[in-house]
Amino acid sequence: METENGGSGYVEVMQKSERPFTPLVIIEFTVGTKQAAIEWIVGKIQKSKAAGGADLDVNAVVMHHKQGITETVLYVGGSTERLLWAADMMDIKKEYCDGYYREFSVDDVSNFRGSKDLDNFLTMSEKQKIILHELEVIKATDDDSAIPGYDRVRLYSGNSVLKKYVSNGIIAKMYPLHDEEEIKRLGAEWYQLKQFAKEQPIHHIREYFGEKIGMYFAFLGFYTIALIPPAFIGILYLITSWKSMYREAIFAVFNLIWATIFLEAWKRYCSELSFKWGQAQDVELNRSQEPRAMYHGTMDKNPVTGKPEPHYPKYKRSLRFYGVTVPVIGFCLLVAFYIMLGYFYLQAWADEVYAKDKTWLNMSLLHMPTAIYAVIIGVVNNFYRKIAKILNDFENHRLQSSYDNHLIVKLILFDFVNCFMSLFYVAFYLQDMTLLRSHLAALLVTQQVIGQVREAMVPFIFVRRRKQQVDKVMKKEAAIQKVEYFNGELDQIVQKQVNLESTMDEYEGTMDDYLEMFLQFGYVFLFSSAFPLAAFWALLNNVTEIRSDAFKMCRVFQRPFAESASNIGAWQVAFEIISIIAVITNCALIGMDPEVKKLLPSDISAVNIVIIFVAVEHVILALKGAVAYCIPDTPKWVEIELEKMSFQTKQALHADRIAASSSQQKKLGDLLKLETRETSI
Amino acid sequence: METENGGSGYVEVMQKSERPFTPLVIIEFTVGTKQAAIEWIVGKIQKSKAAGGADLDVNAVVMHHKQGITETVLYVGGSTERLLWAADMMDIKKEYCDGYYREFSVDDVSNFRGSKDLDNFLTMSEKQKIILHELEVIKATDDDSAIPGYDRVRLYSGNSVLKKYVSNGIIAKMYPLHDEEEIKRLGAEWYQLKQFAKEQPIHHIREYFGEKIGMYFAFLGFYTIALIPPAFIGILYLITSWKSMYREAIFAVFNLIWATIFLEAWKRYCSELSFKWGQAQDVELNRSQEPRAMYHGTMDKNPVTGKPEPHYPKYKRSLRFYGVTVPVIGFCLLVAFYIMLGYFYLQAWADEVYAKDKTWLNMSLLHMPTAIYAVIIGVVNNFYRKIAKILNDFENHRLQSSYDNHLIVKLILFDFVNCFMSLFYVAFYLQDMTLLRSHLAALLVTQQVIGQVREAMVPFIFVRRRKQQVDKVMKKEAAIQKVEYFNGELDQIVQKQVNLESTMDEYEGTMDDYLEMFLQFGYVFLFSSAFPLAAFWALLNNVTEIRSDAFKMCRVFQRPFAESASNIGAWQVAFEIISIIAVITNCALIGMDPEVKKLLPSDISAVNIVIIFVAVEHVILALKGAVAYCIPDTPKWVEIELEKMSFQTKQALHADRIAASSSQQKKLGDLLKLETRETSI
Repeated sequence: METENGGSGYVEVMQKSERPFTPLVIIEFTVGTKQAAIEWIVGKIQKSKAAGGADLDVNAVVMHHKQGITETVLYVGGSTERLLWAADMMDIKKEYCDGYYREFSVDDVSNFRGSKDLDNFLTMSEKQKIILHELEVIKATDDDSAIPGYDRVRLYSGNSVLKKYVSNGIIAKMYPLHDEEEIKRLGAEWYQLKQFAKEQPIHHIREYFGEKIGMYFAFLGFYTIALIPPAFIGILYLITSWKSMYREAIFAVFNLIWATIFLEAWKRYCSELSFKWGQAQDVELNRSQEPRAMYHGTMDKNPVTGKPEPHYPKYKRSLRFYGVTVPVIGFCLLVAFYIMLGYFYLQAWADEVYAKDKTWLNMSLLHMPTAIYAVIIGVVNNFYRKIAKILNDFENHRLQSSYDNHLIVKLILFDFVNCFMSLFYVAFYLQDMTLLRSHLAALLVTQQVIGQVREAMVPFIFVRRRKQQVDKVMKKEAAIQKVEYFNGELDQIVQKQVNLESTMDEYEGTMDDYLEMFLQFGYVFLFSSAFPLAAFWALLNNVTEIRSDAFKMCRVFQRPFAESASNIGAWQVAFEIISIIAVITNCALIGMDPEVKKLLPSDISAVNIVIIFVAVEHVILALKGAVAYCIPDTPKWVEIELEKMSFQTKQALHADRIAASSSQQKKLGDLLKLETRETSI
Repeated sequence: METENGGSGYVEVMQKSERPFTPLVIIEFTVGTKQAAIEWIVGKIQKSKAAGGADLDVNAVVMHHKQGITETVLYVGGSTERLLWAADMMDIKKEYCDGYYREFSVDDVSNFRGSKDLDNFLTMSEKQKIILHELEVIKATDDDSAIPGYDRVRLYSGNSVLKKYVSNGIIAKMYPLHDEEEIKRLGAEWYQLKQFAKEQPIHHIREYFGEKIGMYFAFLGFYTIALIPPAFIGILYLITSWKSMYREAIFAVFNLIWATIFLEAWKRYCSELSFKWGQAQDVELNRSQEPRAMYHGTMDKNPVTGKPEPHYPKYKRSLRFYGVTVPVIGFCLLVAFYIMLGYFYLQAWADEVYAKDKTWLNMSLLHMPTAIYAVIIGVVNNFYRKIAKILNDFENHRLQSSYDNHLIVKLILFDFVNCFMSLFYVAFYLQDMTLLRSHLAALLVTQQVIGQVREAMVPFIFVRRRKQQVDKVMKKEAAIQKVEYFNGELDQIVQKQVNLESTMDEYEGTMDDYLEMFLQFGYVFLFSSAFPLAAFWALLNNVTEIRSDAFKMCRVFQRPFAESASNIGAWQVAFEIISIIAVITNCALIGMDPEVKKLLPSDISAVNIVIIFVAVEHVILALKGAVAYCIPDTPKWVEIELEKMSFQTKQALHADRIAASSSQQKKLGDLLKLETRETSI
């Protein structure tokens, strides 16, 4: 290996590669990061796997600003061979010659589809995912006690070095690069106006952004289409003069069954996607998956693979969950409840004051409680999200999926209480239908109108923002006195791209997007008998939401690292629970409706009316359960394909065991003959 | 091959084997069966697989009675080699050298545990199961138009010949032989009095009777132990004078939660057994399993394995299910309902007559309705069971498991209506708690007392019965004029055993036993707040039930063919549904109790009391759901072992694919070099 003698201290660590270099992932250090820390990690990234490194290619660009500050950016890439080997180790699934997705294996590469062109065998998002993984698994060794230059940042054997850099703010940003050509093509299919009525290019989205984001957009699209029938009926009710007493009841029952069918149909579609994307696993191999980078514990052996890894006993996690998380969250929910009570109390007081003395001043007082409530909720919400994150980290989950699911539950609980508790209070404690209707309409319509205006503004804001960004980049470039390259100069176009993407916002993940859909789903189905137009508003919102989300994904945010997903995780359960609660709320709402009560024979006692509605509720719940049970979660063809795949696996395994043992094997016939001879002797 | 020239027409078909012959399965023909039919099937059984036969060994014993009638009995066995090959084809699981159960493979035999002694490698019940399977897969060919001698019994290509013989009454009995020594040993561990307080020898039971029966006894034992706490509390309530208003409520809530925990704990224990018995499958390989022998349809290819097999489209089955089964069953349930109404109507009339005129004659009239009801129910039940069986056959299920599950649902529905509808009627329509309590106690205690007396009598009856059987056998033997043996004379002891076992009853399967437990579970948990002693009675019953069932299995019944099972199938769901309904009924019972109502503040309206109880019910249901969700269905160690197993499978597969492709494989490095060279040229 040659080393290049540059102008600064990278000399010793920089290994010049002779291969053409394509940068895939960008690492930006905080301005003023100590040289030693940069050198040390660059060394780690370049070192061979055997030496505890990542064996990747790095180009470093050091920008000396006129103000005397220095900015360092690493461009990380990897050779095709290196990335393929990593794909093998990571069990990345690729399409096999038999059409099934199988775990990629280097030794068997020629049997995978697309292996003629090895450089493009892995997609760009796969390569970036691999690089992220390889960077994250750089572990501190026994000799590493602290990050060089940062003695306060202690390292313990087994720590993920990269995560330490990130969590201590030494690395400011890390993101994969966009593929300019591909993103243009994807955008044209996805968010342009002429595509308005077309399906989303789900498979293309998945290829570019990974399965997790692909799943989100598939769900969003599926849910939006599912809103059409209830929205249509809602409109029909609005414009027709048909004023039967039953209309709310009929609508509610339709909605409840529709929600169940939608969720079941989604499960089927989801398992179809999951199969097509090679994400359908026969067994949930949880324990053999690698733990999250932040997972900690005493070093132990993985019970399945036998590899060394940290172990954190389950009872400790349970202790933390039941001993800390549950009480803290309970307390938070209680606080939220009391804040809501305070709001209703204040509102009642304001109403009273206004009723006594109808001055303008007092009229403005009428809106004060809502305003105060909104502000407090905003603050509390923000605070709670931080607590939820801290608690979730504290629980020390081993897998990313279980980490995510626990975080989802925490956020859902709080948002549910925040958004729906007041509605429940109005509906079932105050039992004021008029207030419920207006409160619900106000909440939903206000949120949606604001949301839609905001979404519609996105492209305009983007154009202005992009201009600002370009200006910023130009200004920055102008301020640069000297640029040093290590490992050869980089393409100017790539550098421009990096400078631009660096100023873009980071995509925060699908959590908030799902949460928005979840709350909307609640508004639409929980009180559908009180406000039938909800579905229409939601539909209107989502149609624009899809396109503006798409635009944001492609143009506003930094590219996110691809993550795999075989379903929407805890969200499925969350939506199902809402659909169960919706049965209860709607039955109760209809049962409480004085109009409906008039319809029943007058000699039925109040108690019997309640019992009738409870019985109806139980029947609907049972029906819902039966419908969910009768619709298979997986389409027949996927089931057959999956079984075919594991049948072939089984047969191959059979063949393998025979091959493996054939050398020292006595044939059955010989064995039997031998036995007979022995007994006859 | 030599043929022996005996005294009758078997000459042509009997092939004399030189191997020592151990009979495993007995086939008895109906007295007077035509010679040609016997000869034909004997030929089929002996013929090689290639010639469409079963390639098994048969000895025929023809007994000429003095009355001039002739009885033919076939003794079927198979060589070790033949049985091992069949075990391979049937994917029977055996313990591998790594301790896991893997599908047995002849080529890999030396790596399976116990393969040193190949003759005893397969257990006797496994051998018998294999022979049954091999006999059942003898298919009629295109040349076979009818059973010889029975032109009316048409055969179509692909029909199971054996099943045709059985369903047309040509074969009277077919059963595997008991293992006299082993059954004595098993009995000593299982049902002898000194073993009373010990655990059942579950693994030994499974080895002798197969997984399905093993699972049943494991469940029975587990359930019986689970009855101890509620029985104990029930007794405590009876003997203590503590008469709080809450006592029924507390007991009911305890019972509801206990039922949930019991069902979850059983699932865990069941998955443990399933793993230990090599029944835990990673994927449910339904479509690659062989269809039931009675399954029919147009010949097609199996979508997974590609083997030819009958295909019956799903929509036709759905059509039959929704178009025929559902209406017929609905009608039957309606009839049962009206019979019950008639019973209550009659009873009310009898009560009235007696109240008017208290004569002795009228007093006897009081009991008439119950007697009539019992008789009618008995008749209807019998009739319904036949209908259920016909409907289930008509639905033409492909797999035995789905056939069983559909039959279970049909039987459960009817029995549930029969046994519990009258209780529901009394509890919630008549709302007569005293009547409910007496009705429930009468139903349960009467059934149990009768049951226990009957069970306790079993050994005595058995002794007398056995004497009769032996007498019968001796009489029969005395009546025999001449016995012809084909394929060499058989051991006299074996013949005596066969004569005795031939007179034993056939075991009808676990269906009725489960149904009994299911109804008992319903009596104990559905109305536990009304009759807390139910659990005690149930416990008492089950303790004797286990031992008497065990005795019957070992001494009274013919040995059943072993069947595999990885869980208790639809029964799990059935018990869970009962435990959900129990929450509803108990909350309603307590809510209706005037004593409980007195406890609540008097200013609460009747409507609010109902709402409170509905709320409590919902909370308990939610809690139940949460408990069921939080307890993992599989113990941690089983999960780890399963994952380890599939991890090893995956790795082996990996290795296999490499081995398979290594010959025509270019190494990755070569491929890359080639590419670089091509591009550089």
